[in-house]
Parts: sequence; C-alpha cells; structure tokens
Amino acid sequence: MSVAPVRFQARNSIEQVEEGDDLAPKFDDRGLITVVTTDFETGELLMQGFMNAEALQLTISTGEAHYYSRSRQVLWHKGATSGLVQTVRELLVDDDQDCIWLRVDVAGGASCHVGYRSCFYRKVAGAGAEGEPAALEAIYDDKAYDPSKVYQK
Amino acid sequence: MSVAPVRFQARNSIEQVEEGDDLAPKFDDRGLITVVTTDFETGELLMQGFMNAEALQLTISTGEAHYYSRSRQVLWHKGATSGLVQTVRELLVDDDQDCIWLRVDVAGGASCHVGYRSCFYRKVAGAGAEGEPAALEAIYDDKAYDPSKVYQK
Repeated sequence: MSVAPVRFQARNSIEQVEEGDDLAPKFDDRGLITVVTTDFETGELLMQGFMNAEALQLTISTGEAHYYSRSRQVLWHKGATSGLVQTVRELLVDDDQDCIWLRVDVAGGASCHVGYRSCFYRKVAGAGAEGEPAALEAIYDDKAYDPSKVYQK
Repeated sequence: MSVAPVRFQARNSIEQVEEGDDLAPKFDDRGLITVVTTDFETGELLMQGFMNAEALQLTISTGEAHYYSRSRQVLWHKGATSGLVQTVRELLVDDDQDCIWLRVDVAGGASCHVGYRSCFYRKVAGAGAEGEPAALEAIYDDKAYDPSKVYQK
C-alpha cells in the first residue's frame, strides 16, 4: 500500500502565508528551502541544510529528518549511513515560509560528519588584534565519535 | 578615528577550513552567507537571515547583529527601526564555514516583524488527513508587540 504524499497549499497572499494555517512553503529557484535543525532538549544548533519538496514531505510523513544534499544532488535520509538518525519532535515554519525549523532528538548524540556533536564547534574569539585576522576557538573538548569508523570505505 | 575592518582568511584546504582556527567564511555567488539566530538564554530560533562580508565584519566589531536584506538589497542593522536590537553573546561557524550561528539577547524580547517573539510561530500539526493538505498550528497565544505601532509611517 502506498501512502499519499503530504500536500502543500499554493501561495496566494501575504496574509495567507504569514497569518494563516496553510502550509505553503516557498522553494527557491533551485527547488530548495532552508532548514535549521536544533536539539529538542538543549536548543543547540546542530546543522543547517536544505530540503526539496520530497524531503519535506518525507520528513513530515516519516517523522525522521530528510534533506537534499546540494553537493551530492540527492535526497538524503540523515543517518542512513552513520546511524545518527534525527527524530523530529517539532517542525515549524517562519513568517514567509521560506525556512523550516526542525527540533529533533539525535540517535548517538552527534550530527556532524567531522565528529562533533554539532556542526557548530568553533566560535569567533574576537575581532582580531590590530591588523590581525579574526580567529576561531574550539567549544568542545573532544569529538563525540570517530568519523573514520562511521564513514569507513 | 576609523576602525580597521575585521579581517577574514583565504580558504585554502578542507583541513584548514574544518579543523583549524582560521575564520575563512564562504560567501555564495551572491556574496552572502546564511545566518541562524537563536536566543542565548532559551535556545529558541528567532530568525534565519543572510550577511554579506560587511554585515559579518560589523557584527563582529560592534557586537550587534547586522544582516543583508535580500528584498531591500541593503545592509541592515537589526533593530535600527524597531529598537529590537540583537546583542551578540556568541558567534559560531559550522564545519565548512558557510553558515553563521548568532546567539543573542534581544532588546524588547521580540525579533519578528509580524509581532511574535520569534519568526517561527507556527508548527506543522501533522501530515494531514487522507487527501487533505498539511496544516499549521500557532505556538504562541499572543503577539509580543504591535507591529503597526513599531513600524508606523
């Protein structure tokens, strides 16, 4: 038995899009919408990615985060390779519906291919001394997992 | 006295960009980088926007969020009109440095031009019944301020 895909509404007016209860996402000229993914419990920003219409439909219907990989140009079920599946606790849209906010629980507690819990593992340490470039500073002591073991081959 | 602009590094290798302490942001073909802005205290996602190089430099040097408005095509000091200035508590970059995470305190406690605390004031309520489109559900009871008073004229 096939499941009918999640349906979106056509975009008709600012009032409909911003103040109504229609899900009428705006995909850009590449057919993509920006996605921001945070940890449901901690509020930590885990990653920023993109979805096409199919990825958004599958995310809603399955409850697991699907993205569109711009580099690989494929639908991407997050965690299919690494096991680090993201279970969606809440899916929100912004005012003009050109951005999706996923609040998720992460299997294995890590979301970044480099091995850290979050893709955002460095902060800007300051503006840089006179004439020196700005520098970054690590915010985690250690990686959450060894990516060479998870993504081997 | 003029202040020297914050300097970025050239992007040379994946290792430098992903594992090093050089701030080497990747601006896209429009000269923009994606920005995700969350409330420092609550972790709430407030907005998703864009910066050009100047906006990023000013954000780092002043400690207040500056964006680039794609619709108005201008540098945008958030709060200059509304008073809802965002003070940066922490500024992070992701692995490949094509996304900025701003953790901010917000004057007035609101960030959305529609009047809500966050631009993300609606969630997807479910996949939609058989044949019906998916629908949204409000997550706040009330707006945080009256935008017709803040943005009058």
